[in-house]
Amino acid sequence: MAVYTEIGDAELRTFTALYDIGDILSCKGIAEGVENSNYLLTTERGNFILTLYEKRVARADLPFFIALMDHLAHHGVACPTPVRARDGEALREVCGRPAAIVTFLNGMWPRRIAPYHCAGVGRALAQLHLAGESFGMVRPNDLSVAGWRRLYLGCGERADEVQPGLADELGQELETLAAIWPRELPTGVIHADLFPDNVFFRDEKLSGLIDFYFACTDFLAYDIAICLNAWCFEPDHSFNVTKARLLVENYRAARPLSPAELSALPLLARGSALRFLLTRLYDWLNQTAGALVKPKDPNEYLRKLRFHRSVAGPAGYGIDA
Amino acid sequence: MAVYTEIGDAELRTFTALYDIGDILSCKGIAEGVENSNYLLTTERGNFILTLYEKRVARADLPFFIALMDHLAHHGVACPTPVRARDGEALREVCGRPAAIVTFLNGMWPRRIAPYHCAGVGRALAQLHLAGESFGMVRPNDLSVAGWRRLYLGCGERADEVQPGLADELGQELETLAAIWPRELPTGVIHADLFPDNVFFRDEKLSGLIDFYFACTDFLAYDIAICLNAWCFEPDHSFNVTKARLLVENYRAARPLSPAELSALPLLARGSALRFLLTRLYDWLNQTAGALVKPKDPNEYLRKLRFHRSVAGPAGYGIDA
Repeated sequence: MAVYTEIGDAELRTFTALYDIGDILSCKGIAEGVENSNYLLTTERGNFILTLYEKRVARADLPFFIALMDHLAHHGVACPTPVRARDGEALREVCGRPAAIVTFLNGMWPRRIAPYHCAGVGRALAQLHLAGESFGMVRPNDLSVAGWRRLYLGCGERADEVQPGLADELGQELETLAAIWPRELPTGVIHADLFPDNVFFRDEKLSGLIDFYFACTDFLAYDIAICLNAWCFEPDHSFNVTKARLLVENYRAARPLSPAELSALPLLARGSALRFLLTRLYDWLNQTAGALVKPKDPNEYLRKLRFHRSVAGPAGYGIDA
Repeated sequence: MAVYTEIGDAELRTFTALYDIGDILSCKGIAEGVENSNYLLTTERGNFILTLYEKRVARADLPFFIALMDHLAHHGVACPTPVRARDGEALREVCGRPAAIVTFLNGMWPRRIAPYHCAGVGRALAQLHLAGESFGMVRPNDLSVAGWRRLYLGCGERADEVQPGLADELGQELETLAAIWPRELPTGVIHADLFPDNVFFRDEKLSGLIDFYFACTDFLAYDIAICLNAWCFEPDHSFNVTKARLLVENYRAARPLSPAELSALPLLARGSALRFLLTRLYDWLNQTAGALVKPKDPNEYLRKLRFHRSVAGPAGYGIDA
């Protein structure tokens, strides 16, 4: 849940007057997105989302994110389209913060994951990767191996506060992954955070992807590995191979996976589990009193990490090589 | 900011299928209302608000609130209208909580209060009181004198944690007010919580009143006293007689005030200040770790209380007797 910045009615009126979106009928802070302040803006022309970018998103990265959404939306990916003001600019400033208005996507994110959700996500992820091929900008993934090391150095020593022995386990995992992390795999734009709350469905049909603020340039198969973690574990921590198979098979139907990508999946899934484990650990150890967001339990990703360590190849996920 | 209950997509679909509001396009938790979970529901027919009533609102009171909104909306007051399901019921249950869908009001609540806001609030408050005359239900104000005593007994002793000497000051104030509180003044339905975040404006025009979950039967002039506290103090704590005069004169243009009501205003304003001081004190002293709502500073209302003690009659607020 977010909404960190209060936007006043006068500021809003001045800001939206720069756009051709009609008169503002209402503007309500919504409980969506953890990093930024989001408002549902209702105008005479319909609903829009106004985002004010807070500290955790680097200003220098915003042109990449805005251009990416624009590119993807114009290449058939159901995602928010940045709305340009009359001067052609989509990225502006309000209340001292960078801000953008994007189109509104219908749908709701699924609270209980059914197999058809995983099929839809696999399909949409492949479409995103294919549409990204013609996108010209590059943004290195600052949450890959070097980023994990930075996070580990910043909070890893205190990991034993969460679970005794965790600091050592994470240190070893980090060194192992750094040594064997793939060097060459098909690379392109990845979403890098395609969790259920970033995927909307209407009934059983995927209606859109949101929240591109971790998007970057990295191995495409790493995005699949993130989804295996985010979509295919049950609440009781067991791994659902039916869901994983549906996710990957629907992906492959649009974008075939090379043998190298397939055999790298367990390793990429370990790395992805370590990435979310470390950011959760950091947030857990650095909770601020009065924060609006309750940090997520890092232990969930420790279990996932250990599971992937036990997987020898794609067959362990129910996937045909 | 609220949203305490997560409503799942399947539960939402089952629930909204009982209504004639069209297909659900989206449902987003909004940062509105402190006591309940509120969602902005977008359907094929437009926007609605879905409220799930949380613990702090007594179930037994809900029929009063729903009937009141229904009554007021049908008597010309711009306020949310409860939407009835096909079986005629507006008050239902979802996720184990009482729930209602109400119409959506355009507008935004003012962050900086201008004199015209106070004029609009005075006018709307009188309209609410007049429309309430034909409302048949009664709900005693559980946050009047007896309620203040209950709050004081529950947390007053610890008031010195906020400011040394406060416990004694509040105890004395309580006894004084209990002794001289008016016994007979024109009585009817009052809103009892008409703060700026419960009043929407479009440009300079008041577009609606929301949040009737403290509404009750009490002295009508007590509602004016609450508004003097909520609308007429500046951020630097000074009292703005221009705003107070606009608020009360616009009220009187629709519903004249008796001499008894006018001369009771300073006393009613003291009582109202004590009421909000005590509830804020209670919330301040009973903060729970991880709560989503940051409690408001009780000291603001201590200053207001002391100010009203120094006011001898309506002229002290800039109001003609």
